[in-house]
Amino acid sequence: MKTLDRWNLIATWKMSLGGVRRASRLLGDGKSLEEAVTEAVKTVEDEAAYCSVGYGGLPNRNGELEMDAAYMDGDTLKAGGVMAVRDIRNPVAVACALSKYERNCFLAGEGAMVFARQHQFAFRNMLTPAAREKFRKATAKAGGPACRDAYDGHDTVCVIGRDQQGSMACGVSTSGLFLKHPGRVGDSPVIGSGFYADSCAGAAAATGVGEDIMRGCLSHAIVERMADGCPAQEACERVLTGHIAKLRRIGGSCGSMSVIAMDREGGIGAATNLKLFPFVVGNMAGECRMMAVKQADGRMEIIEPDEEEWKKYEVD
Amino acid sequence: MKTLDRWNLIATWKMSLGGVRRASRLLGDGKSLEEAVTEAVKTVEDEAAYCSVGYGGLPNRNGELEMDAAYMDGDTLKAGGVMAVRDIRNPVAVACALSKYERNCFLAGEGAMVFARQHQFAFRNMLTPAAREKFRKATAKAGGPACRDAYDGHDTVCVIGRDQQGSMACGVSTSGLFLKHPGRVGDSPVIGSGFYADSCAGAAAATGVGEDIMRGCLSHAIVERMADGCPAQEACERVLTGHIAKLRRIGGSCGSMSVIAMDREGGIGAATNLKLFPFVVGNMAGECRMMAVKQADGRMEIIEPDEEEWKKYEVD
Repeated sequence: MKTLDRWNLIATWKMSLGGVRRASRLLGDGKSLEEAVTEAVKTVEDEAAYCSVGYGGLPNRNGELEMDAAYMDGDTLKAGGVMAVRDIRNPVAVACALSKYERNCFLAGEGAMVFARQHQFAFRNMLTPAAREKFRKATAKAGGPACRDAYDGHDTVCVIGRDQQGSMACGVSTSGLFLKHPGRVGDSPVIGSGFYADSCAGAAAATGVGEDIMRGCLSHAIVERMADGCPAQEACERVLTGHIAKLRRIGGSCGSMSVIAMDREGGIGAATNLKLFPFVVGNMAGECRMMAVKQADGRMEIIEPDEEEWKKYEVD
Repeated sequence: MKTLDRWNLIATWKMSLGGVRRASRLLGDGKSLEEAVTEAVKTVEDEAAYCSVGYGGLPNRNGELEMDAAYMDGDTLKAGGVMAVRDIRNPVAVACALSKYERNCFLAGEGAMVFARQHQFAFRNMLTPAAREKFRKATAKAGGPACRDAYDGHDTVCVIGRDQQGSMACGVSTSGLFLKHPGRVGDSPVIGSGFYADSCAGAAAATGVGEDIMRGCLSHAIVERMADGCPAQEACERVLTGHIAKLRRIGGSCGSMSVIAMDREGGIGAATNLKLFPFVVGNMAGECRMMAVKQADGRMEIIEPDEEEWKKYEVD
């Protein structure tokens, strides 16, 4: 069991390592929490190798990359988000800008793209040759693009940060399910499901099959537990295992779901229904580590795998 | 204080009366809860006189009517929704159809309209002469269409139903803020904020300024309280007054917010930060009543105003 407190940043998946490194340096240099969190997400959005976030993300069934992103300030509870947007280089930056407004903070589709255009956010063709090739192969298979097996690659980057004053914030970004229906909105830009931050209680975020995460409003449920004094790890485990047990009881689908959280004391938590869910933590001293939550029969264990161990799990 | 239990339906605003009447007859005739709830919402969507829902709704700042709707089945926790859609006669019907899927249940903008078109849902030009005239007048004023004062007419129809077996469901529909930014998504199609239904706990829904409702995930928060055994009325009051106190403490905007709920015993609840918030209840025997929650200094009282009293309040 590793020490779970005294971190300033926690983020989903190994792909967030570069972003968390950058954010921890920014925090150490006295930059704002907002800058640190959004820059962490932008670093992942800009990296072509990650096939579920920003540039390099996998397209919908029309071959078009549609992205969701959100940002929430835990001091003010102000949040902003974009849904089903195309051609925007850094969706999380637009979401953060929207969070400053009192009205019209969540924008979908063409309307969100008009806002981004009018506010001079950078545009880019987000489809990489690799993503195009994956789309070509998937749609060439028998069954066509709606083929259910293709619904993987739905990993969202979620970054939670906490500064020295105890202010908290959260940023998330994803290109959603591979071969999704055009216009599909997952949990990521949905407040309370994909993310929630309240500096007086804590912050939480989720990654996995959005439709199943949304059925339990997992991020809000975790923050509510932390508001009642529950530590982050216990809140993550209780909410996720309770939700999965409930979905099994009432039948229907129960896709992959993983959550991260940080409580108001800076304690961290993570839970998953995968065998292993990697995440990254960082602090203001520039220390960053890759950790994971290992799960068997609903029992979670936080581990810090070494190089050899990571290879065994073959996860990103 | 009026009797708050033994109702099968509760819905927001006086405009829902016709829909609740229809739904109570449908339930009495042995029709399904899904049919009763969606038909109640559709009745309001089809009525030209209501300027914040469906046909007759007020347009965005481009003069185009964009609508949000959602449906949730409290037995399965399956939900569906459409965001920022145009030209669809009954958005709630599309939302209900989407709730049957395991993936791609929430669709925004053009993608949602493609789904509706391909599944043969009725289309209609939703802009009425009266709505066009209101838009013309508002945009002719100094300050132009972005004028903040114009942000009224954001009343959402929310219908919560409960059948004899204790199954619960919820449907909501709105055209959102008058003169909103194109693509703006309010709380209505956002699970946990605009609506939430869990037959094991209860159901709740919200109407008002979506951005402020979303900051507290009000519907999920209310259902969580009911899951802990709190009656619907107490859950509504505690969550709404707590959220408003918090927004005041941390500063920033605190627009109008009203909530309704029904607990698993069929007890109803409502709370508001308006002086008066009207709602409608109905049962399977075909009995329907207009009630209201009267609020002063955060203290709520459920009343059943007579004709003369309604006139005093001048509310729809």
